[in-house]
Amino acid sequence: MDAAGVHTIALTVAYDGAPFCGFARQPGQLTVQGSIEQALHTLYRRDIETVCAGRTDAGVHARGQVVSFDLDDEEITQRSAHGLKRSLNALVDDRIAVSAVQEAQAGFSARFDAVEREYRYFIFTGDWRPVLLAGRVWHLAKPLDLDAMRAGAAHLIGEHDFKSFCMAASAVGKPTHRYVAEIDIEQTVLLGESDVVCVRVKGNAFLHSMVRTIVGTLVAVGRGQRQPEWVAEVLAAHDRRAAGENAPAEGLCFWRVAYAGPGGSIPEPAEFVEGWR
Amino acid sequence: MDAAGVHTIALTVAYDGAPFCGFARQPGQLTVQGSIEQALHTLYRRDIETVCAGRTDAGVHARGQVVSFDLDDEEITQRSAHGLKRSLNALVDDRIAVSAVQEAQAGFSARFDAVEREYRYFIFTGDWRPVLLAGRVWHLAKPLDLDAMRAGAAHLIGEHDFKSFCMAASAVGKPTHRYVAEIDIEQTVLLGESDVVCVRVKGNAFLHSMVRTIVGTLVAVGRGQRQPEWVAEVLAAHDRRAAGENAPAEGLCFWRVAYAGPGGSIPEPAEFVEGWR
Repeated sequence: MDAAGVHTIALTVAYDGAPFCGFARQPGQLTVQGSIEQALHTLYRRDIETVCAGRTDAGVHARGQVVSFDLDDEEITQRSAHGLKRSLNALVDDRIAVSAVQEAQAGFSARFDAVEREYRYFIFTGDWRPVLLAGRVWHLAKPLDLDAMRAGAAHLIGEHDFKSFCMAASAVGKPTHRYVAEIDIEQTVLLGESDVVCVRVKGNAFLHSMVRTIVGTLVAVGRGQRQPEWVAEVLAAHDRRAAGENAPAEGLCFWRVAYAGPGGSIPEPAEFVEGWR
Repeated sequence: MDAAGVHTIALTVAYDGAPFCGFARQPGQLTVQGSIEQALHTLYRRDIETVCAGRTDAGVHARGQVVSFDLDDEEITQRSAHGLKRSLNALVDDRIAVSAVQEAQAGFSARFDAVEREYRYFIFTGDWRPVLLAGRVWHLAKPLDLDAMRAGAAHLIGEHDFKSFCMAASAVGKPTHRYVAEIDIEQTVLLGESDVVCVRVKGNAFLHSMVRTIVGTLVAVGRGQRQPEWVAEVLAAHDRRAAGENAPAEGLCFWRVAYAGPGGSIPEPAEFVEGWR
């Protein structure tokens, strides 16, 4: 237990993004944050503000979103981690699932303590509707030159000003430097279908629509509409209009967040409240 | 071209089973066969009867269903294999997709020429809703002892009277011997979730509800409600009431059918119509 009596809770959250107007709470709209905060209000009978690792857009999925919030000494004794998980899963919208509940170091922030974020983008390149993967992939129906895409992606690795890959409106007056650690492009198999390309992007943090713009830009290269070197020009332009189209939301999944704990885990408190775990 | 002027066409078909009252045509109901035959009627302006490799029940998915039918000399010249695929995909219900169209040996039957059929059944054992896999897995939320399930499954390998694993009504007066070649039970990863168990069942042919009853019976063993030897007793009882529950339709996918062509492919005609491929 922390001296100040503050207990920071971290949830790992998955959701099917389709029905939501994004993660961030918006009055009168169905949002992931809104649904989670409403459930917390039902459980603790007060407004509890949550912080997330990455604010996903409307339609974007998550399997490893992290959401943090604080409870006080009295609140944390009301239910165990397991009980809280069960109660939240019973109360949130059924397109959201809390896959893990844990106590983090007091003061932990799902957003500011994130060390690395990983997104995965799935593209189906077959010339027929991927009916069993509907809503989870971008159905592009064109073959992609993965080597050309990899050559294009190489220009984005490292620290750069990613202004060209950011939705213009949200970039105004804000820093647009980010560090991209890895872009991995592989053929993969999903539910038996092998005409699937997965683009894995890892970095410290991402601008608004950055992953979808990276994917849209690399797809222009993969289709042969652009040369790999064009990606360097897009980056240098510092202008969203230079980049490719935004890849559709449904192919994107916020995959995983790494923190400073062992193996990228969420740092634990020195001591747990009795009966919590 | 066949001497008699009959061209047998084989479609490979995938579908999300959820909206359909099964594969088999039923007046006034949405069925996979009904949708495909309606599309064929639109294209060729006559009733074309189709035969499938396996009649799946309501809610059961398919990725490798095979459907065969005959065209005459004039009809086959109307469009190429590629054109027929595109036209069918434009006309069928959008939860159905034709992933391949090919000409088979004249007289080929998707049903009677099948050498081996494979089904896969997916179970999610995590204690939270698998939101990204919704409708594709049985959410069981209990850990399963896979070794016990494998020991139980061993009793089913080979040729047996599977009457205990057949929907009672449809078994009356019909032969219930079948050959099960393989039951493979493995932990797998689907869209990043590792709490998934896949039961792969291969055999020459299957009775009504047989795979779902096998899975339901093996799950009773995997949960420790029954011993592996009980599966042998169920088999010997020749009575559906002896077996476990029917596993839900949504976890089942008709995966693949093998024929006598190279590598299990559909046997091709000696000669193709010009312009067909």
